[in-house]
Amino acid sequence: MAEKTIGIYLFEGFEELDALGPWEVLASWTQQYPDDGWRVRLVADTTSPVQAAKGAVIVPQEIRSGDVDVVIVPGGDGARAVMHDPKVLDWLRHVKESGAVVVSVCTGALVLASAGLLRNRPATTYFAAFDELRAVDNSIDLRTDERWVDDGDIVTGAGISAGIDMALHLVDRLVGTERAREVRRHIQYDPEPPV
Amino acid sequence: MAEKTIGIYLFEGFEELDALGPWEVLASWTQQYPDDGWRVRLVADTTSPVQAAKGAVIVPQEIRSGDVDVVIVPGGDGARAVMHDPKVLDWLRHVKESGAVVVSVCTGALVLASAGLLRNRPATTYFAAFDELRAVDNSIDLRTDERWVDDGDIVTGAGISAGIDMALHLVDRLVGTERAREVRRHIQYDPEPPV
Repeated sequence: MAEKTIGIYLFEGFEELDALGPWEVLASWTQQYPDDGWRVRLVADTTSPVQAAKGAVIVPQEIRSGDVDVVIVPGGDGARAVMHDPKVLDWLRHVKESGAVVVSVCTGALVLASAGLLRNRPATTYFAAFDELRAVDNSIDLRTDERWVDDGDIVTGAGISAGIDMALHLVDRLVGTERAREVRRHIQYDPEPPV
Repeated sequence: MAEKTIGIYLFEGFEELDALGPWEVLASWTQQYPDDGWRVRLVADTTSPVQAAKGAVIVPQEIRSGDVDVVIVPGGDGARAVMHDPKVLDWLRHVKESGAVVVSVCTGALVLASAGLLRNRPATTYFAAFDELRAVDNSIDLRTDERWVDDGDIVTGAGISAGIDMALHLVDRLVGTERAREVRRHIQYDPEPPV
């Protein structure tokens, strides 16, 4: 069986934890359980270093391609430029039409909406971006109280830290609950917000 | 008042979320509230790109220096090499003697212990590394049930995702509870582990 690929798409001004939270979950899974048949890669338009929203600089591992089974689009201030980049929107429409699952975290949903992928679909986004998302596509059935929304070939997450919860859900969906529990245990994800 | 600096120390094989979880919390805080007088930087031995434990490559922002008020040492497989690097151990001892708070996440505690900084102190680490930490320094008062342990000039966190909780605690300690709540809200940290 050919290995399946999850691509986490990095762009200038992506929000660090939107991408690196799911990365930690998914890379922990795929490294420890190679027999599950999945790999995860940090992809971008080129392999040049990308500066994230808070200033961290990450070097992408691969150039984004159409040969991908799951694409994750993080949010961040940079999403407002990416949502007007026809090459990225075409890529997302293409991979979805090819059968990939297209996923967003936080304001990454703006990019999916701009590509027309959220038309008449349930979705969520960063709590401070609900109006902005409605302005892109008023047909979206906005789920303002959910941590993530799984609508089959489209999955959207709420803001920033929600990507961790959503990525664990993806492991549950792609492999199974016991595997997702093992990954949760590995990253010692027993959150106790102190404030 | 001079700006104070938090350095998050990157090394080959650091665990991505150990560093980038606190980074998201602390950079969200310092970017939004510059008048609080703090900055946070990703530091390393050189400014060459650093490959993390799961394969992500990060470009450090600055070379580590003694002029720092808080140092955060992440864990990851690479911590087992760093704990035997006398230059890093000397640096940590030096910054602590200069009045800095020295912080670890996950197996970063092995590095602090190897530097002698945890002698007769309460501390925690990754749940799978308790015995390894005891083997480095048997005098440590290991708190195996705590998400983080604040012992004044030494703060230690549990595994991987615990760095997020611990970083919010640091904001609470360094500024106040209301500020930490604002940062928590900004990163939409209302965790709902799905499994």
